[in-house]
Formats: sequence, C-alpha cells, structure tokens
Amino acid sequence: MTKRDFITAEEYGADAVDRILDLAVKVKQGKVLGGLERKVMANVFLDPSLRTRTSFETAMFLHGGHAVVLEPGRSSWTWETESGAVMDKDTVEHIREAAAVLGRYADVVGIRSFPRGSDWNVAREDHIVRDFARFCEKPVVNLESARRHPCQQLADTLTLREKLGDTKGKRFVLLWSWHPKPLPTAVPASAALAAAHNGMEIVIARPEGYELDPEDTALIRKITQERGGGFVHIMDDPDEAMASADAVYVKSWGSLKYFGHPEEEKAHRAGLRDWRMTEQRLRSTRGGKAAVMHCLPVRRNVEIDDAVLDGPSSAVIDEAENRLHVQRALLLDMIGKL
Amino acid sequence: MTKRDFITAEEYGADAVDRILDLAVKVKQGKVLGGLERKVMANVFLDPSLRTRTSFETAMFLHGGHAVVLEPGRSSWTWETESGAVMDKDTVEHIREAAAVLGRYADVVGIRSFPRGSDWNVAREDHIVRDFARFCEKPVVNLESARRHPCQQLADTLTLREKLGDTKGKRFVLLWSWHPKPLPTAVPASAALAAAHNGMEIVIARPEGYELDPEDTALIRKITQERGGGFVHIMDDPDEAMASADAVYVKSWGSLKYFGHPEEEKAHRAGLRDWRMTEQRLRSTRGGKAAVMHCLPVRRNVEIDDAVLDGPSSAVIDEAENRLHVQRALLLDMIGKL
Amino acid sequence: MTKRDFITAEEYGADAVDRILDLAVKVKQGKVLGGLERKVMANVFLDPSLRTRTSFETAMFLHGGHAVVLEPGRSSWTWETESGAVMDKDTVEHIREAAAVLGRYADVVGIRSFPRGSDWNVAREDHIVRDFARFCEKPVVNLESARRHPCQQLADTLTLREKLGDTKGKRFVLLWSWHPKPLPTAVPASAALAAAHNGMEIVIARPEGYELDPEDTALIRKITQERGGGFVHIMDDPDEAMASADAVYVKSWGSLKYFGHPEEEKAHRAGLRDWRMTEQRLRSTRGGKAAVMHCLPVRRNVEIDDAVLDGPSSAVIDEAENRLHVQRALLLDMIGKL
Repeated sequence: MTKRDFITAEEYGADAVDRILDLAVKVKQGKVLGGLERKVMANVFLDPSLRTRTSFETAMFLHGGHAVVLEPGRSSWTWETESGAVMDKDTVEHIREAAAVLGRYADVVGIRSFPRGSDWNVAREDHIVRDFARFCEKPVVNLESARRHPCQQLADTLTLREKLGDTKGKRFVLLWSWHPKPLPTAVPASAALAAAHNGMEIVIARPEGYELDPEDTALIRKITQERGGGFVHIMDDPDEAMASADAVYVKSWGSLKYFGHPEEEKAHRAGLRDWRMTEQRLRSTRGGKAAVMHCLPVRRNVEIDDAVLDGPSSAVIDEAENRLHVQRALLLDMIGKL
Repeated sequence: MTKRDFITAEEYGADAVDRILDLAVKVKQGKVLGGLERKVMANVFLDPSLRTRTSFETAMFLHGGHAVVLEPGRSSWTWETESGAVMDKDTVEHIREAAAVLGRYADVVGIRSFPRGSDWNVAREDHIVRDFARFCEKPVVNLESARRHPCQQLADTLTLREKLGDTKGKRFVLLWSWHPKPLPTAVPASAALAAAHNGMEIVIARPEGYELDPEDTALIRKITQERGGGFVHIMDDPDEAMASADAVYVKSWGSLKYFGHPEEEKAHRAGLRDWRMTEQRLRSTRGGKAAVMHCLPVRRNVEIDDAVLDGPSSAVIDEAENRLHVQRALLLDMIGKL
Repeated sequence: MTKRDFITAEEYGADAVDRILDLAVKVKQGKVLGGLERKVMANVFLDPSLRTRTSFETAMFLHGGHAVVLEPGRSSWTWETESGAVMDKDTVEHIREAAAVLGRYADVVGIRSFPRGSDWNVAREDHIVRDFARFCEKPVVNLESARRHPCQQLADTLTLREKLGDTKGKRFVLLWSWHPKPLPTAVPASAALAAAHNGMEIVIARPEGYELDPEDTALIRKITQERGGGFVHIMDDPDEAMASADAVYVKSWGSLKYFGHPEEEKAHRAGLRDWRMTEQRLRSTRGGKAAVMHCLPVRRNVEIDDAVLDGPSSAVIDEAENRLHVQRALLLDMIGKL
C-alpha cells in the first residue's frame, strides 16, 4: 500500500480533486454520514490557526473520528527540522521522530508550517512539510506550507463553482492588497490554481516587484490552458483589473525579492496603501457584483473595506464554511471507509 | 427560527431557568442519555479557564457531542473587537468574521471575555460578547463576561437548592473578601441573582466603595421581590453580616470607582485584609453551619481559610460539579434532540 | 470502593503490571474494542508533552471515551502546590481544589509534574503528584513525576519483551549520555525497573557522580533479584558496558548532587560529551545488534547518533507506539467496563 499525501492539489491529481469536490457537495447536503469511525487525525500547528483547526476537528467528529491538536514549542517540545543537526541547542525533538511517532498514533497527520528563514530558494522547497511526510508512515495533509494551502484551494474551487455556476471562461482577479506585514504567497498561488482548475480566465493584479514564484506562475498558466481558461494576465493597475471581473480574490503577500527582510520591504510597499478592495472598485466589476473572496483572517479597512465585507458580494464566510465540507470529503477520500 | 443566546439568565427567562434546573437534576441522576449526537460546541477563551472548559467539553461528550476549544492570541489569531477599526496594527482577525465562521462550523458557540479597558461605562455594556452573539448565526453561551457568569449562576442556583432544600426566605450573604487584585463583578452579581431567583433574603456585605453596578443591584432587588425573597440588605460589617446566614457566598471584586486603575485601588483596599471567611465567622452563621460557597479558583487563607474550605460546610466542590450538570441541561435545552 | 492510583508500577503491583501487559498485547492486535464508553480522562500537564498527550487522547477515543487536556499557567490558572499557603502572590488556584474538581468531572485523572525547586530531598517525595492523588476522588495516573514515568515503564517493559523474546537473564544496559541540560531521573529509574521486572541482568553505566537516587537503585536491585535477573552492575566506562548487551537504553540525567543548580553541574559534565551512543559502540553489543532504546524526545548526535537512530537496531519508535497500547490496557484495567 503506497500512501498518498495531500501536499499540493496538483500532485494529488486533478481527477482526485474533482472527485473530492463532488463528494464535498454531497457531504454539505448532509447525504454522507460516518466513514471515519475509530480514525484519528493528529494536527501539528507550527503556526496559529482558527479555521483549519476547528474545521478539521469538526470534520473528524462529524464522521465518527477524532482530531488531536499539537503545538510544538507551546504545549509540546520545540522541533529541530534540519537533517544531521547536532542538537545541543534549543530544539528538543527532531521532526523525524515526531513524524514517525505521530504516524504510529494517527491514521492521517496534518502539519502547518509557514515559510521561515531569509532565503526564498530554501523556503520554497517546503522541506519541513515534505520531510515530515517522508518520515511519517501515514498520509500527511499540508495545513499550509510556504508554497501551498491546498485545503483552502479546495474550498475556493468549490466556492467559485457555487457562486458562479459554470466557471469556464469567467474572469478571476487575484488582487494584491496592502498589509502592514509581508505575508506568505501560499494562499495567492493556491487561489489562482483553484481558478485555473475551474477553467477560468485569470488576472493577477499586483504592484511591480510582487510577482509570485515563477514556477507557480508557470503552473497557473499551464493548468489554465489545460482546463480551457485561456490566458493569464498580469496587471499593475488595481482599477483596470476590476473590469469584467466575476470574482475578485483579495490577498496580500510579500515581495519574494525581499523575502525574510521585512524592514527593507517596508519602504518598498510604503506607497501602496491604495491597493485595497473598496466599494468603488466593486462597482467596476461585472454587474457591480463580483464575488469578493479572501481566505481569512482579513484586515478590515486595510485589505477590504467594511462596506464590501458586510455587503452581499462577500463570499468570505462561505469560503470558510466550505473548508469544513471539502475537508470532510478529503478525509473520506484519504482514509474513509465508504 | 430565531436563535436564543444565553448571555444572561434573566434574558433567557426565569421559566427557562427553572426548566433547565429541573432537567439538571435528572441529568445528575444519570437519567438522561444522549441528545447531542453530531452536535459541535466551539468555545472561545479570551481569558483562562479550568472548570468552564473541562465541564463543557465533558458535557458535550457525555451526550454524544464534541467541544472545540479556541484561544485567540495563543493558539489562534489575535482578535479586533472594535467596529469600523482600520486593522493596520496588532489585531489580525475581526470578531465579526470569527463569530460568523464559528457559527458555520458549530451548533452552539461559547465565549469568555473578562472586562477590559479602563472605563466601566464601556466595559459594562459587554459589547464583545454581545457583538459576538450578533455576528454569529448560532446560539451563543456567555462563558463569563464583564457583567455576568450565567453558567456559574445556574450552578449556584442548583447548589443552593441542594444545600438548603426549600430556599424561600432563607438568608444568603454575599461576602466581599480581600484579594491582591481587583477582580470582576460578574460572579458576585450572578451569585446574588441566583439567590434572588431562589426567593432568598439577601445580604450584600462589602466595604464602603465596593458597590456592585447600580443596575445589577436594582435587578437583584427586583427579582428578590418578584420571587418572594423580601429584602436586600447592604452592610459594611462582615461580622454582623454572618448572623442567621444560611449560605455565605465569599467573593472578592474590585471597586468600580477605580475600574481599570488597579494601582489607585490598591491603596483603597490596603486596610481590608480582615475581610476573609474564617472559622470564627462561620460559627456566627445559623447553627454555625451555613453553606460556604465560592465560584473557584479561590485564594486559600486570603479569601477563605483552610479550616473552612476543608470543613463540612464547604460547598465549593459541589458548586463546581454542578457546573457540569447545569451545562448539560442548558445544552440540551438550547440545541438538544430530546 | 477504594480507588487505585497508578503513581508507580511497583505500588500498582507486579501481577497487575503483567496483567496489563498481557492485555496490551491483545489491544495491539486489535482484539479489544470499546470498554471506555462515556468515560472521561482529564490530563493535567504542568510540563510539555507530545507522546503522552497524543497517546492518551487516542487511547481514550479508540475505546469510546474522551480525554480533556489542561495546562495550568497557560490555558488554565497557575497552581499553588504548598499546603497551608497564604495565596496572596501569583498562584491563583490550589491543587486541592483543582484535584477535587477534576475528580468530579472525570473518571480518571492524569498529571505530569517534573521535579521543581533546588532540594532533591523535597523533590524526591513527588508531593505534587501524590497530593493531587490524595485530593482527587478518582484514580490518578502519573504522567511523569520527579521519581517515575510509569507509563513509559510499561511501554519499555513490553518493548523489551517484543524485541528480545524471553528476557530472562538477558543483559540490559542503561547508558548515561551527555546532554546540554541536567534532566530528571524519572525515566532512567523507570527504564531500569522495566528491565528488572523482566528478570534481566542490569548494567548501569554512568560517570562518577551520576548515581540514581539510592532508594531507586535499591529497588532496582531488589526487583532484579526477585524476578530472577541476578545482578545489577554499576560501571563508569561506556565502552566496557556495551559488551554482551542485548538492549541499550540511552538516557541523560542530571547529577542529584547538583540538583537544582544547573550552572554548577555544567562544569562537572563539561568533559563528558563522549558519553553518546555511536555506531561503533553498537558494534560492541551482542551480535552488534542490541536493541537501542530511548523514551524520546532524543537529542540527535548528542545522545544518539543519526546512524544508530536511523538504523535497524533502533527501537525508539516502537517504544513510543507501545505507549499507546499499554495505556489503552492500563485505562481498561483502571476504569474499563470489560
């Protein structure tokens, strides 16, 4: 039996993603009970969480299973993540042992690890999540790594389908927004991949210098083409980007050129506070009512204005709810007894 | 379907409280199984907890459900609680989104938020808990706010009935005690309301300057009258207060005049260390054996002496146990399938 | 009904230990389902944990029960542990109340409390865990105290049997190792007691000054004799100790002479970094393939080299897995409905 990790949706497979989303629809309708009896998920959070933690714990419970939550460095031991390390400093447990042990206790193991360090060429390899998966004998779920947030991607794929019906050829705008800190690119890359999988036309609107990782952009282009979405447009004017948008995914991320150097990046982004989803910009979208999306947590009146978040176009709470349903389907697909 | 929050017992309704307490008696006797199958409670602790967290988690489990525990700012994101905030500082998630999202994952949501800030006129509005309830589509349980601890109130109402039998007209003394820090008034107000609901005669013994919120005192008087308890006496001598007491509820709280200014209050309370429940004071109560109550955690030999806590009059562990049973009944009343 | 705590394996009884281990074998084979329905375990961690927390939570779940996790001073109130304390400082809740209350909510209560303070004559009494058990009306499980880690001991007893078959007379080496900090002696004492219970010949290899508590050494000798294991040898040469070893239990611990004075001990252990389990030392064991054991977390390349941990002789992950199975059996023995 080969184990199948869910590190990225593309590695798990496009067909599998569609199968999971079909199951998620049934799950959401209350048509699927049980399937995870006596199953245990162990979720490791090297970074904080609200939705991921609550939705996975709820998902396991609703189908008869149980999720354990671990927070190394807080309630548990601080982890070493480098191979060959001589552990005579502050780290107490190596990820090799942690992964192997949790693989003995649980049937599926989740891990969240945001990008660390100051070298994007290292961070982009997602070695913590991938090493963890390698050392764990049970399937591993990526709860957000440096490069991907694949559970969010599943939820966004489903939400786009719910909001737009037939998504083919519709226009998806990934809108960079200002934020006081440089955030990871995992969510914007995953969101664009969700739209690409849905066969949408994609616009990435960001200021000069805020390109996604080139390999991710290439993958977005490739999948867009394969799934019939046509082109990926890169723009640097947030107002122009709104035209004909069917969905606007608002998200801030840091410049990879300054990765790990937040102070230097600060100057670079100083003039960019106008990159924000406003009511006026919403009016410029198709029919003035594009679906406005965000993975949450969102900085109100910084990334998206109150009027938009509290208005009828906001899809952000539905996206969060869909995390629960796609994850129920994912778990049933990975370890379920259906 | 209108949702019914449990923010205060008085808003939930006196009849409902009696109904819950009747059910709690049956629950405690082991006569009620199940009723919360596939139900999820999400509990948010903005402040620490032992009893509340454990008793709700146990309550959900014993009836087939599950409780998720969240601690914003620790294991989860730090929350913004002000409407209209421009979130470019330290808060990462607005309570609006948190409440809305948890309302999608859970069937009932609990929140604990002790009073914050330095203006009682603001804190007394309990706007965090009330906003949370407004933005959450599922029923919300107050796990202790600035003004009330209604689950403790239910437990105390039941404990008084268990200890005193017919509570009507019996004498309940709320005894202020010294403590190194100014504590919230939620528990003393709720405890007096428990006694008022039980139709007891009420004595509030506190030093000059330690009045409860006038609106709460007025409500205690009103309910005492309605439920046949007669008078509410305010006293400033702890020894005099003991006479004929059937129950003594020991509790420290801060002077609302100095709310949010603990250093200024310190001088004020400096001479008050004698306000403490001693064995000698217990001897002055009715028959020398009034039930001695406290919500816990209690500062031993500061609020109540060892000899009292470890003697036969102490009801504090029974109160804590009753938290479990009244909450089982409350949950069954709010979301149960009985 | 007298309650039976599991503070040390020797107090629980040698026969009971054998009964639990027999049950653990069946449990591990998947032959025992249920038995803990509607049962609650409350686990209190005054110190961090990964295996203990996860394995007990999983154990309870797999048999139909539920475990609650509490962390006083983090998610819960800071505890006072001294009798008669006047609690006007930083501690908020006395262990007496905490133990009594948890005993009302749960069916079994676990507590972890590493040694504290700077006086071994005090710490060695394990008064926190023993007081907790005294004040709690339900059976208490020691999740690691100053003197013992009895759940680890059960797991190690089972692992030795699995790895060596008939353990009688086989050679067990407890190998002290260098570590940047002085660690507790609970695990090495418990590991040697596991081997003693298995009737093994025991070698304790440690540098001069790193004796275990004399009472523990005497108990190891006594049980070794009773169970037919012959002698306990104390050695101060790590290389010599390897000869004919069937199992090597690597573990660092602090010198009890310097207990609570880590800075003074530092000088003492400065020259001892060579006390480490290397591939070369493994080659000197019986057949070059003794089982290498460790309770985890292990400092790689400090306590044990990568080559040993990642080689075929390593038993450390099996030990950790066995924590789950022995604890399932322990819980069934303590509170199960089989």
